[in-house]
Amino acid sequence: MEDTNSHFEDRVVIVGVGLIGGSVAAAVRQRYPDCDVVGVGRSEQRLAQAGAAGLLTEWHTKLTPEIFCQKSSVVVICLPVHLIAEQVLQIAGMASAETLITDAGSVKGTICRDVSRDATAEHLFVGAHPIAGGEQGGFEYAEAGLFTGKVCVVMESSDPERTHRARKFWGGIGCQIITMTADDHDQKLALTSHLPHIMAAVTTAVVGEDNLSLTGSGFRDATRIAAGDAALWKAILAGNRIEVVRAIAQAEGILGKYRAALQSADDAEVERLLQQAAACRSQLDC
Amino acid sequence: MEDTNSHFEDRVVIVGVGLIGGSVAAAVRQRYPDCDVVGVGRSEQRLAQAGAAGLLTEWHTKLTPEIFCQKSSVVVICLPVHLIAEQVLQIAGMASAETLITDAGSVKGTICRDVSRDATAEHLFVGAHPIAGGEQGGFEYAEAGLFTGKVCVVMESSDPERTHRARKFWGGIGCQIITMTADDHDQKLALTSHLPHIMAAVTTAVVGEDNLSLTGSGFRDATRIAAGDAALWKAILAGNRIEVVRAIAQAEGILGKYRAALQSADDAEVERLLQQAAACRSQLDC
Repeated sequence: MEDTNSHFEDRVVIVGVGLIGGSVAAAVRQRYPDCDVVGVGRSEQRLAQAGAAGLLTEWHTKLTPEIFCQKSSVVVICLPVHLIAEQVLQIAGMASAETLITDAGSVKGTICRDVSRDATAEHLFVGAHPIAGGEQGGFEYAEAGLFTGKVCVVMESSDPERTHRARKFWGGIGCQIITMTADDHDQKLALTSHLPHIMAAVTTAVVGEDNLSLTGSGFRDATRIAAGDAALWKAILAGNRIEVVRAIAQAEGILGKYRAALQSADDAEVERLLQQAAACRSQLDC
Repeated sequence: MEDTNSHFEDRVVIVGVGLIGGSVAAAVRQRYPDCDVVGVGRSEQRLAQAGAAGLLTEWHTKLTPEIFCQKSSVVVICLPVHLIAEQVLQIAGMASAETLITDAGSVKGTICRDVSRDATAEHLFVGAHPIAGGEQGGFEYAEAGLFTGKVCVVMESSDPERTHRARKFWGGIGCQIITMTADDHDQKLALTSHLPHIMAAVTTAVVGEDNLSLTGSGFRDATRIAAGDAALWKAILAGNRIEVVRAIAQAEGILGKYRAALQSADDAEVERLLQQAAACRSQLDC
């Protein structure tokens, strides 16, 4: 995980200081107190609060070349997925050649394709997706340990040295690194993250407000993610449209098997399906 | 909730001392130390362990009339749903007219119909479903507070006095009581409990073992219930077949809306669906 034998970074610039950006800041501040942690956001007041909370050493409400001109700064874009590529392109036009730009978006294919329209941006950017988060947004919920032991998928890039630096950055704040292509990432995350969100939303919709009083802890667990921000999730699903549609079709196929087995009183098949899922799920420890 | 102005019960007989039966025992022992708590189970050793853990004052591995002959005992059947009706019928043949038989099964229609084949059993039985539980079985996981504040659905019965006694019993160990018919219960629980289990199992199956390393806390929450006992859940789903099939069809309908909206790039519709679910789910506090 952490590469303790070499220098971390001198300066980390975080664009978007919410739960994820704030947690990156908190982790860097805790582990590397000599590293500058620069916040970029829309609200001076919110940034000042994050500064007062000890997350930032410096902050700006406007993107200017001065922020990025320093040698060897890492820029981490922690914005909703539909805003990331544009921000990478803009920053690539200001940054020095020593800059690494990375992100924390939960889709990667569309972002990498949009970024690759610009050769400089493509060169500076190594996309990433730390699989960590929570239902609550805002830097107030930031935690220095949010990434500890969590998987971070780092994109393969044309520049092995820059990929190595991105791995070192995310590993340096506690992540376990997996490297893969953007398309592989999106195909897998459609299954492990995007479909579960839709399934939770569908379950919630079928139950409806009138029946909430008859729900137990099982329903609460199963649908907790459905309370997430609808606009953010719309952008995630739209950013991974083809793979999410495929994942939904797979779910429809298995749901149809349950329905057919129950309708035809093939309870052995129902048990087989349940047993298969239970065996899989039991491999996770909680 | 609790009716503190009147006497609780003298003797509670629990058939099946697992998580639920053990938690009924623990709650009665904690709240009503003068009440006998009698366990009935298959294993003398397990019952003795539950006795040593302070859950039982007496236990038996065989059903005999002596266990139930006492005036005013409450018998609580805490067995898998497919075994409950048979047990009620058997106990009704041994019990005094003062006995209340209740249960904790998560389906009610099939049980009530099977019990009503026998007039005595129908008279003595008031079905119930405390909406509480956990992934782990066994009395070792029993908690005196498991039912505190949880909803318990008590069936309407032909004998208002016995229904009142059942309400008082379940309310007396901490439950909030809702009364409804068995068919209403099964229609609603198909939505709030049985469908969520299937959705969690489907989500798990689509992800599969190979992709578990790319799951986060959202997936873990959403699929935790899928690790539950497949044989128990097969019996629950089979015991509520028609309503579960209806619930699955509703879920398929909404899932199809997500797929169609994503395929046609109608992202406003995707957001509307997500927003509706988020607004509903946000009404629960965690």
